[in-house]
Amino acid sequence: MGKLLIVGTLAFDAIETPFGKTDKILGGAATFIGLAASQFNVDSAIVSVVGDDFPQEYLDLLISKNIDISSLEIVENGKTFFWSGKYHNDLNTRDTLVTELNVLADFKPVVPNNYKDADVVMLGNLHPSTQMSVIEQMETKPKLIVLDTMNYWMDNALEELLHVIKYIDVITINDEEARQLTNEYSLVKAAAKIQKMGPKYVVIKKGEHGALLFHKDNIFFAPALPLEEVFDPTGAGDTFAGGFVGYLAETENISFNNLKNAIIHGSNLASFCVERFGTERLESLGSKEIKQRLLQFKELTQFDIELE
Amino acid sequence: MGKLLIVGTLAFDAIETPFGKTDKILGGAATFIGLAASQFNVDSAIVSVVGDDFPQEYLDLLISKNIDISSLEIVENGKTFFWSGKYHNDLNTRDTLVTELNVLADFKPVVPNNYKDADVVMLGNLHPSTQMSVIEQMETKPKLIVLDTMNYWMDNALEELLHVIKYIDVITINDEEARQLTNEYSLVKAAAKIQKMGPKYVVIKKGEHGALLFHKDNIFFAPALPLEEVFDPTGAGDTFAGGFVGYLAETENISFNNLKNAIIHGSNLASFCVERFGTERLESLGSKEIKQRLLQFKELTQFDIELE
Repeated sequence: MGKLLIVGTLAFDAIETPFGKTDKILGGAATFIGLAASQFNVDSAIVSVVGDDFPQEYLDLLISKNIDISSLEIVENGKTFFWSGKYHNDLNTRDTLVTELNVLADFKPVVPNNYKDADVVMLGNLHPSTQMSVIEQMETKPKLIVLDTMNYWMDNALEELLHVIKYIDVITINDEEARQLTNEYSLVKAAAKIQKMGPKYVVIKKGEHGALLFHKDNIFFAPALPLEEVFDPTGAGDTFAGGFVGYLAETENISFNNLKNAIIHGSNLASFCVERFGTERLESLGSKEIKQRLLQFKELTQFDIELE
Repeated sequence: MGKLLIVGTLAFDAIETPFGKTDKILGGAATFIGLAASQFNVDSAIVSVVGDDFPQEYLDLLISKNIDISSLEIVENGKTFFWSGKYHNDLNTRDTLVTELNVLADFKPVVPNNYKDADVVMLGNLHPSTQMSVIEQMETKPKLIVLDTMNYWMDNALEELLHVIKYIDVITINDEEARQLTNEYSLVKAAAKIQKMGPKYVVIKKGEHGALLFHKDNIFFAPALPLEEVFDPTGAGDTFAGGFVGYLAETENISFNNLKNAIIHGSNLASFCVERFGTERLESLGSKEIKQRLLQFKELTQFDIELE
């Protein structure tokens, strides 16, 4: 059992999909990452910031999942980061309606002493300089540093992004972002270029079309589980990342073969996330249904062609 | 070793991609299906029609692959079906520039006597009534009838299409066409509806995003092999179908597990097809490189999570 440090946002989300809309509900990258990782046998902590408008019940939820939030910064008279978005009919694209950074604008993560030796560090989507400051606070070299980012930072903080990714092991990025970062349409070529920028492993997320893991000449692919209905894709990428790092922190094995398994665990948990609004499905998710769905993943992908 | 009857077009194609353009080259659904199926230990025949402008070297190529073309109709003073298309930069979409049906307009396929007991019948994309006329000529019930179709027939011959698919076992169709045929966005729901229309098995092709096989509550997914460069997607879907039916005709086993393997073989051969213009890559394809790439498919998709 390893230690997992999660740095990322806790937030309010307001979501509209073709199936309905929500008021402000619990959201944020660290929330989804933490809930997903809590399915594994790990010690995990979230470093984040909220305003004092953030409900105690949300904090209690995270604590109930054995997530250490003792170093969460709660800003007095501050307002929590708020995001609102509306999904188009195909659920593959969305418009951001509101982004209020609020307390996130001045977020300076402080890694607690008992997590400065974390085995796995998961840097949720934040300003690359903020992500870098976390790496600099680590006292022992983590087994694995995983970084998520997005096109916004490529447009607005490319230099800082190119700096921080020199120090990480795994980058998670979507297909369009991989193309933007490298000017390569082919994802194989894009992943090769990104590996030269620093990360030994590149995970390219393709939403409903699954995820690819690249390492040297090796490629692994995990499909998204075909579902009768995708209800709300919010948080699916972070849930995927949370399952990925949770499994790796539990097993403390960062071989390529074990990273394959981690990708499957991440895809598996993401398939639950999208079935309800926000974190609803993850909050009550049990190990039996998780195992059941892993079996579906096996049936979905495994075949028995013998090659002598 | 089973008998495989292939009915579909032999054609001239003129193709433009971001990487170059061709004059009229060998094309047509039956061509790609036949070349792909010839990689397996099967007796196969193509029923099709060409004009007397169709070069002997193209016929010789098919004969050299042990494809029986003795019942090919060659129309004196007729012109062979011609298609021309231009791919957009992402290669996922294309514009049709020219479609000249020519001798195809009056094509009435005649199944030769020695193929009226074929084990597997592959009906390439043609008018649904033409496809139906083939089924009616069979003297013994084939183990498996596979039908490919496209949105054009949904727009222009829906009634005939809904009739013929009552009599088939497997339909191959792309994702947008599955949605059009059923008015369901979810491919899981679409496949369930299509199974109620007749075919026990539904294969949904998603191009670079792979292919799904549906049968009752079972789903299998094969990714497309991630390639450094896709050069020309023309014929990939037919090559996929050819590998699928070729493998099934060789093994004469139509269990769901064996259909999974067939999907992988089809995806494997399609990954070669797209590496060169038209049939170029398939013409010289050897069993050693095919096996090598099957190994890549295994590495791409297989993982070892144990579920007790």
